[in-house]
Amino acid sequence: MRHRLTGLAALAAALLLPAAQADEGMWLPSQLPEVEAQMRAAGFEGDAAALSDLSRPPMSAVVSLGGCTASFVSPHGLVVTNHHCAHGAIQLNSTPEDNLIANGFNAATMADEVSAGPGARVLVTDRFERITDRILAGARGLSGRDYYEAVEAASKAAVAECEAEPGYRCSVVDMYSGTDFHLVRQLEIRDVRLAYAPPDAIGSYGDEIDNFMWPRHSGDFAFYRAYVGPDGKPAAFAPENVPYCPAAWLEVSTAPLAEGDFAMLAGYPGRTFRHRTAPEFAEQVEWQLPSRVELMGALLAAIERASAGDAGATVRYAAQVASLKNTLKRAQGELEGLRRSDAVAARRAEEAAMAAWLDGQPDAAGARADIAAALQVLDGARATRERDQLFSLMSAQTQLLRSAMQLQRLALERGKPDALRQPGYQLRDEPRIEAALRQAQRRYAPEVEQAILAELLARHRELPAEQRVPEVDAVFGTDATATAAALAALYSGTALDAEEERLRLLAADPGVARASVDPMMRAAAALLQAELRHEDEAKARAGELLRLRPAYMRGMIGHARSQGRAVYPDANSTLRVSYGRIQGLEPRDAVRYAPLTTVEGIVEKHTGVAPFDAPAPLLEAIARRDFGATADPALGTQTVNFLTNLDTTGGNSGSPVMDARGRLVGLNFDSNWEAVSASWMFDPRYKRAIHVDARYMRWIMSRVYPAPRLLREMGLHEEVADPQAPAAAAAR
Amino acid sequence: MRHRLTGLAALAAALLLPAAQADEGMWLPSQLPEVEAQMRAAGFEGDAAALSDLSRPPMSAVVSLGGCTASFVSPHGLVVTNHHCAHGAIQLNSTPEDNLIANGFNAATMADEVSAGPGARVLVTDRFERITDRILAGARGLSGRDYYEAVEAASKAAVAECEAEPGYRCSVVDMYSGTDFHLVRQLEIRDVRLAYAPPDAIGSYGDEIDNFMWPRHSGDFAFYRAYVGPDGKPAAFAPENVPYCPAAWLEVSTAPLAEGDFAMLAGYPGRTFRHRTAPEFAEQVEWQLPSRVELMGALLAAIERASAGDAGATVRYAAQVASLKNTLKRAQGELEGLRRSDAVAARRAEEAAMAAWLDGQPDAAGARADIAAALQVLDGARATRERDQLFSLMSAQTQLLRSAMQLQRLALERGKPDALRQPGYQLRDEPRIEAALRQAQRRYAPEVEQAILAELLARHRELPAEQRVPEVDAVFGTDATATAAALAALYSGTALDAEEERLRLLAADPGVARASVDPMMRAAAALLQAELRHEDEAKARAGELLRLRPAYMRGMIGHARSQGRAVYPDANSTLRVSYGRIQGLEPRDAVRYAPLTTVEGIVEKHTGVAPFDAPAPLLEAIARRDFGATADPALGTQTVNFLTNLDTTGGNSGSPVMDARGRLVGLNFDSNWEAVSASWMFDPRYKRAIHVDARYMRWIMSRVYPAPRLLREMGLHEEVADPQAPAAAAAR
Repeated sequence: MRHRLTGLAALAAALLLPAAQADEGMWLPSQLPEVEAQMRAAGFEGDAAALSDLSRPPMSAVVSLGGCTASFVSPHGLVVTNHHCAHGAIQLNSTPEDNLIANGFNAATMADEVSAGPGARVLVTDRFERITDRILAGARGLSGRDYYEAVEAASKAAVAECEAEPGYRCSVVDMYSGTDFHLVRQLEIRDVRLAYAPPDAIGSYGDEIDNFMWPRHSGDFAFYRAYVGPDGKPAAFAPENVPYCPAAWLEVSTAPLAEGDFAMLAGYPGRTFRHRTAPEFAEQVEWQLPSRVELMGALLAAIERASAGDAGATVRYAAQVASLKNTLKRAQGELEGLRRSDAVAARRAEEAAMAAWLDGQPDAAGARADIAAALQVLDGARATRERDQLFSLMSAQTQLLRSAMQLQRLALERGKPDALRQPGYQLRDEPRIEAALRQAQRRYAPEVEQAILAELLARHRELPAEQRVPEVDAVFGTDATATAAALAALYSGTALDAEEERLRLLAADPGVARASVDPMMRAAAALLQAELRHEDEAKARAGELLRLRPAYMRGMIGHARSQGRAVYPDANSTLRVSYGRIQGLEPRDAVRYAPLTTVEGIVEKHTGVAPFDAPAPLLEAIARRDFGATADPALGTQTVNFLTNLDTTGGNSGSPVMDARGRLVGLNFDSNWEAVSASWMFDPRYKRAIHVDARYMRWIMSRVYPAPRLLREMGLHEEVADPQAPAAAAAR
Repeated sequence: MRHRLTGLAALAAALLLPAAQADEGMWLPSQLPEVEAQMRAAGFEGDAAALSDLSRPPMSAVVSLGGCTASFVSPHGLVVTNHHCAHGAIQLNSTPEDNLIANGFNAATMADEVSAGPGARVLVTDRFERITDRILAGARGLSGRDYYEAVEAASKAAVAECEAEPGYRCSVVDMYSGTDFHLVRQLEIRDVRLAYAPPDAIGSYGDEIDNFMWPRHSGDFAFYRAYVGPDGKPAAFAPENVPYCPAAWLEVSTAPLAEGDFAMLAGYPGRTFRHRTAPEFAEQVEWQLPSRVELMGALLAAIERASAGDAGATVRYAAQVASLKNTLKRAQGELEGLRRSDAVAARRAEEAAMAAWLDGQPDAAGARADIAAALQVLDGARATRERDQLFSLMSAQTQLLRSAMQLQRLALERGKPDALRQPGYQLRDEPRIEAALRQAQRRYAPEVEQAILAELLARHRELPAEQRVPEVDAVFGTDATATAAALAALYSGTALDAEEERLRLLAADPGVARASVDPMMRAAAALLQAELRHEDEAKARAGELLRLRPAYMRGMIGHARSQGRAVYPDANSTLRVSYGRIQGLEPRDAVRYAPLTTVEGIVEKHTGVAPFDAPAPLLEAIARRDFGATADPALGTQTVNFLTNLDTTGGNSGSPVMDARGRLVGLNFDSNWEAVSASWMFDPRYKRAIHVDARYMRWIMSRVYPAPRLLREMGLHEEVADPQAPAAAAAR
């Protein structure tokens, strides 16, 4: 079998060829010298070694906001990110008199910049250190849950040591599924201020309707500024704080863009699953996604039936319905994409090729044994997947039952030292739990929650005996009549529907919750036993996989290396670089999308009704064709957004898009619908990333809502329309 | 002002320039020599003079099916048209055992060809003669309704004389709005048989979802054969009939197609309004379409409210709801298109230019007076437009009230000689009326009809006094309370909700209906008086416009001629020719549609669920890439549909699309959504026509559902897959 590709493998190899050409990859900066030849072939003109150094420009200019990416664009701590990443800060500073969401924000002077809120952060990565030996030293020889806990303990110790120096946030990150561990240190800037935001009708033009769509016409950008204490160290917001002086900042390009141009992007992508095994790919396509689609659809129908004709209940469940619909839609998109790309066959072919290569390696037997063992662990998880899915939704999709389970769990965890408490139930999590217990009120209707549970419990009753959760059977009965009676008794008998009762139990001694005779609290106490047991099983599996997956990953990396290919680790919220090209898309037969959109599209989409309500100053500037130096010379008009084949996922929002010389040409803000499945497989035919063109940003800031102060600070020399007289200019 | 264009006019002139380049026009064949130079510039290689002769090929091969167009493609009367044009015939021959809609139809021999039904027609135009003087001789000096009736009488006489020869259907058609009249004679072939149809899942792949959409993937073709009596004359279906031998038939092309290639099309387009005056354009955009959108939306809401929770009523109103939605959607599309094209400004500019030119003409004063008088007549109609719209909907959107009004009207008309009865109420119309009276049952629910009327009557009550219809006020009262009481009394008191009662009144002596004391019949008797009065007013206006519009048309034609441009008359179901090119479309910013679709798109759209349920033999043939000579050499695959800039409208379905030498390259079957407004204005940026590629037809007939007999008859030499063994071929 060695070196002989099956039919499917050959097909997959053919499918993969363009992937390699299309510069797939979320590279660790340290890997860039390895792929420099390919980067140069794509058009890169800089120094890959310089790019790999986090302490030097341009990488030192790329920062995390925690969930979003941003970058410094001036020596005075000016930060550019997406409008949607700054949405919370914009909302926080809005008042009935001055709605910044609707009107935008443009600080006239630095003193007018407003706090983005006490939770806002700018995180500057300054250390990234491989500490695999330290993390695994205590785990060697262990297995299962012991292995898991040894890794966790070593990680916590490394973080505590690193965070001993004030002003830093540290974390240990797992690369290649347990193969390598790195310590990441980030300077944690806590005084973040809003400097500029266009109106929402520019920043999120098209909003939910255009979400995931191309062609796109959003001015999804905003400016923050990072402030530190007078001593230059991170500090909470204070009037005397001063702008942070970053080690590097990006230069904003003034050159035009065109299809085929080199582009690269740096940021903090959240999570991908591209190195999962073929059986996991198959399970995702054959069970996870289809069952999610089916189950979310059933829950939506149950909520709709139970709230029909009840306007109050409809309002209270609107957010949950929106979230279920979003989950459903994403799952459908991911399923469609993985099927279209024949992802399972492609992954099987990759594994078959790796297995064939592995046969010839000295340590093949041990690796094969580990891989086989890992697959067996996955099989074990599969045996209870229906149970785990239904059980987790019983708390995730309810308000009262979840509240009771949280109260019982907290009562349990409060009996331990804080450091040993389950993540999510530590002291720092308590305010969040209290907020959730309060909020339950606004999102709850008893008949709807019962309908949700009835739907889940009916499915639970259909499970084979070995998957049934005894505590669920005990609490809710084993036939439909018993379940209906149990639900009715539970919801008519509980006092937990009163906010004060939930807060009383939260404030009380742990024993009070445990001793409560409220039927909901009793039910939760029983179900908590099942939750803990399932958690134990999951941690044991996680430990085993952490121990065994490295054999699989080393096989994949070794095989790739034998073919001259480098392998990037799955995304894990660490700084990554992707490179590629500005590229259009042929989403389906006879349809081609150009890679650059123009302001003409804003006018085409404009209806006057949100989300297509372009502000008058924007429409007037377009009508005047007042573009100047920011216009695209080839298109003869102002561009808005552009499309690349760059490799991105959630967390890349706000990532700076750079040209061949590292100059800022745009901001990443979305992917196309066809790319929803890219968290599992990068298909070069369909994977695109959507960016704001920096020229649009410059144009808005010079001709529509002028911000000459910020333009000058970025070293830009746009001709600025008189900000005092936009109407007069329009009338001319 | 002369020769000086205003800003808007200059804009419009700029807009119009591409129109001229884009070969707009539904030309009378007789006009083709006038536009031969432009045709040659577009790539035409034939003889325009030959093309202008209806008795010579290829024009003599183009036939009407009454509503659809078709063409002869063999010397033995084989006719090709759209699958959707043959849908009735396919349905008629379907049985529970052999559902031809689902399975398609493929007559093994001529004897297996089945009747398309007694109403099916193939109409071969053989005379087209200008008879303006004869038609207008008796009208000269008259005005208003007298003018109208004189034209009508002369037309009826000409038709009667022409139809004296058996086997012909004749009509008098008005060209350029009363300027010219032509007598059209068509051989009326009454034995039409179905020879071949692909399954519905090919013939209308995508159906309602893809309707008006591009990219498209429909095999919208089917074959009829025209039969005549053994004497060669038209005859009703009879076994001894023989295939008709047409004077000409089209050769099917075997050459490839590509963007930019010359294309032309001949057919029987139904109705356009491109020569309407600028005030009529403005009224269409400012009132007709918006008020239609608003009113249809209100009626839909009323029906929905009244039938909510009543499954029976919902089913009974499903067809009316679908029709209202369709009207609403089309009106929205037309409005959107006319606004996008700035049609009113363009038309005003054309009129201003014509008026300036007219000033310098000898007969300017008289022409100006007529044009002014025509505009005054239009103003008069505008004064009662709200009334006319609401009043006509009171019968058009109801079942019982309409039935009663039809019965009263028929009672009135039956008192006249048949020839003098109002069109729609002649002897030949009575079976249709009976069918409608029977059908009312299946489409009626009293609470819904009352809700529809309540909606219309509330609007009627808001009209200014001079527009209020006294009979409506008398029957339904002048305030909401009175209307509610009147509706309740009417619908509880009528016996017309029984089918037998409606049919009894239909069968009875006219006096019985007139004397009926049924409240619905009494209401209808009163409303009929208003209907007759409004009809009188409308006929008087129609007569005046018939008399006065020719001055406007002659002005437009004269001005165009002074600039070297020919003017085609508005579509009126007579044979027309359009020429242009194969051309893609840029429907909006950053989106481009290619002009050719491929079978890959069929696979992409395939879900297995109608209307995207491609049959297995089609999917298998695609998977085999079994294309042979019909594949497109440049695309390397099988094409399906293509797009041209040809000028079409309803009635052009089935029109043969021909290449520069008059060979058949496709069949027209739809327009794109962006072109819905083309009945008023041809905008070359957006107007496209959608065609089946003849190569797809040949491929389906050779490799998927083979019909070697018909291919040979058309002179085609495709390599035919063994029709006995498609599965075996698939397995190889």
